[in-house]
Amino acid sequence: MEDKEKIYYKRGTDELRLKNIIAHKLVQEFNNCPIEDSERKEEIIRELFGSVGVNPSIEHNFHCDLGYNIHIGDNFYAGYNCTILDMAEVRIGENCMIGPNVGLYTAGHSIEPKDRNKSGYAIPITIGNDVWIGGSCVILPGITIGNNSIIAAGSVVTKDVPTNSIVAGNPAKILKSI
Amino acid sequence: MEDKEKIYYKRGTDELRLKNIIAHKLVQEFNNCPIEDSERKEEIIRELFGSVGVNPSIEHNFHCDLGYNIHIGDNFYAGYNCTILDMAEVRIGENCMIGPNVGLYTAGHSIEPKDRNKSGYAIPITIGNDVWIGGSCVILPGITIGNNSIIAAGSVVTKDVPTNSIVAGNPAKILKSI
Amino acid sequence: MEDKEKIYYKRGTDELRLKNIIAHKLVQEFNNCPIEDSERKEEIIRELFGSVGVNPSIEHNFHCDLGYNIHIGDNFYAGYNCTILDMAEVRIGENCMIGPNVGLYTAGHSIEPKDRNKSGYAIPITIGNDVWIGGSCVILPGITIGNNSIIAAGSVVTKDVPTNSIVAGNPAKILKSI
Repeated sequence: MEDKEKIYYKRGTDELRLKNIIAHKLVQEFNNCPIEDSERKEEIIRELFGSVGVNPSIEHNFHCDLGYNIHIGDNFYAGYNCTILDMAEVRIGENCMIGPNVGLYTAGHSIEPKDRNKSGYAIPITIGNDVWIGGSCVILPGITIGNNSIIAAGSVVTKDVPTNSIVAGNPAKILKSI
Repeated sequence: MEDKEKIYYKRGTDELRLKNIIAHKLVQEFNNCPIEDSERKEEIIRELFGSVGVNPSIEHNFHCDLGYNIHIGDNFYAGYNCTILDMAEVRIGENCMIGPNVGLYTAGHSIEPKDRNKSGYAIPITIGNDVWIGGSCVILPGITIGNNSIIAAGSVVTKDVPTNSIVAGNPAKILKSI
Repeated sequence: MEDKEKIYYKRGTDELRLKNIIAHKLVQEFNNCPIEDSERKEEIIRELFGSVGVNPSIEHNFHCDLGYNIHIGDNFYAGYNCTILDMAEVRIGENCMIGPNVGLYTAGHSIEPKDRNKSGYAIPITIGNDVWIGGSCVILPGITIGNNSIIAAGSVVTKDVPTNSIVAGNPAKILKSI
């Protein structure tokens, strides 16, 4: 987490706002797609995200900031109401599954009250292969989750998760190895 | 929790997918209903769920997988953005109230990474009479909650809750008896 | 928290229901607004809320009960899927930021099972100036959060938060002072 690049950005610039509007329009179309139109849904994901493996599947009420910072490997699945704040990159490996109501938040703000409104920062999130994130989890800025690991439902992940681990709780702690 | 039947299913079969589409179309119509059209909203709930008592009330942004596995007693209330993953049965007694942003998740996956994507399992959730589940709670597969109990807002319920109990936290622990 | 007025209300009265319908229709229009139509979005917020400072910004999938009990200061920002149960007043100061999937819940019910369905209560929530509430947090009835404080993502706030503090966890505890 420490060696990840912190990206600073100014809130409300015209350029950022335009990119946000473009993403939001695609997300709105995606969320209103009839569930059986999986072809159009996949098209939108491929237009919206930075890169997409084979066989992506995302349920409705999806939300992201920019889209192009999201990179997903093969066989990605995200449940209902998935929120990805992708002001920095979110890289997700192959065969990953995310439960409903999960938030991946790359964005943060200054501790100093007077600076918070003017600017924000974002730190990339990296998720390995074969990771399963349970429902209603929260993944914080800069987090890396290793291959094969399981994040138990309701966890708030504040520290990197090693490979082959099951973590749970708020803050999430290692329960056991797989 | 131990003696509940674990149901295994294969993800992405045509049959399951068709049932999911039927449910989703009803859910989409429900969520787009004008709030004052409580008659049509109740009709949809009765068509969608396995069984429904008198006087059901569910706020919008409701989400479920199949619908027919959900059984609710009289005077059921669920707040905004309620998520019920009903791959197994969810049986809820009389006079139960669920706050906003609550997830009832019957579904799970194998601990073994290579098996996770091919299949899943689901364990029924059973909720007694006069239970109040606070906002933003998570109820895990196989959980039974006894009559009269209260699940404090933000709880993650990983173990059965006895009757007449107040539980809170992540994982939820008994705070006191009623 | 102790000296705040507890407001009791009867559920399902015609008067309350009518107010709820009016609010819901505005909220529905707000959530369906094209993201670039910030003028109309601000108009709706000003019509819906009790009072609004300069430069309000709220993402879509917003939800509230009545709207007129919500008072926000200048430069308010609320992320995606913000839920405010405003059966009692929710007063938020200047320059406050709320992350995605946050719930501010003023509403509660009787501990006594037989009384729960007939009536509820609500206790005002008060948030100072320059407060930052992270994503997926829960704020309970009656809570006061002091100026400049930070509520870490995923926190469940069950006790008042003093000024200049960072709190985290479930229940949220003071991590450090700013």
